[in-house]
Amino acid sequence: MTDEEAMEIALAEATAATAHGDVPVGAVVLIEGKIVSQRHNERELTKDPTAHAEVLALRDAAETLGDWRLSGATLVVTLEPCPMCAGALLSGRVSRLVFGAADPKAGACGTLYNFCTDPRLNHAVDVRHGVMAAEASSLLSSFFADRRGTPTL
Amino acid sequence: MTDEEAMEIALAEATAATAHGDVPVGAVVLIEGKIVSQRHNERELTKDPTAHAEVLALRDAAETLGDWRLSGATLVVTLEPCPMCAGALLSGRVSRLVFGAADPKAGACGTLYNFCTDPRLNHAVDVRHGVMAAEASSLLSSFFADRRGTPTL
Repeated sequence: MTDEEAMEIALAEATAATAHGDVPVGAVVLIEGKIVSQRHNERELTKDPTAHAEVLALRDAAETLGDWRLSGATLVVTLEPCPMCAGALLSGRVSRLVFGAADPKAGACGTLYNFCTDPRLNHAVDVRHGVMAAEASSLLSSFFADRRGTPTL
Repeated sequence: MTDEEAMEIALAEATAATAHGDVPVGAVVLIEGKIVSQRHNERELTKDPTAHAEVLALRDAAETLGDWRLSGATLVVTLEPCPMCAGALLSGRVSRLVFGAADPKAGACGTLYNFCTDPRLNHAVDVRHGVMAAEASSLLSSFFADRRGTPTL
């Protein structure tokens, strides 16, 4: 599966989040080009402050593999990960990150911070960004326009 | 309950982690001076890359309160939070952090990064550090000396 094909699935996950009032962000974990897990943001649904799409997808992938070390895995996500989610990529030793839209408010993979390539940390993650970014941004813009609220990822 | 009393409990949690081969880190969530949750590192036990003491304690606290917003909560933890856990403090809108030992390898609350006081982020956390730091460090040193391995938080 290509990055773009995985991002299509992540975008569908993001759309699904809006059904329960969650910010539309979706994520997919790939290993050897095959989907191991796919989730969307569930913070409002589950009242869990850590229930971002990336954390949920990484937890599912680890459960499937029976190992917290997700070496060789690629996380494909519609929005640039926040500090928590970027940290989860490091904790899980994820090899590669593909994201769509950059996040000027909380992005930790190139915008406000870049944990993925900090030589002081004990792991590095290859990053590809901007994949179908317009689609991801459009979902977010529509969601917040409908709510007329302020984004609070 | 004082910070020091809560840290005693967090240290006991940290010690409990070693029974299943996990790095000894323990955490307690307090609201209005009372314990809402207490957990320890379970990454090896559960094979979940996000199962650090802080994440688990915050998830438990949110479940108890029925809200991902942990405003007014204090997290007391034996070791300075890593990027993932510091990010979880922000995601959960935790008001205050008390930690013991600083973490020169991954500390994200004053050492390598400081998410708690970054004005670009949408939340700030008051921080007190160095509470019973020697006890927390001693637990970690003994654990790694016994394993003769390299710390990999």
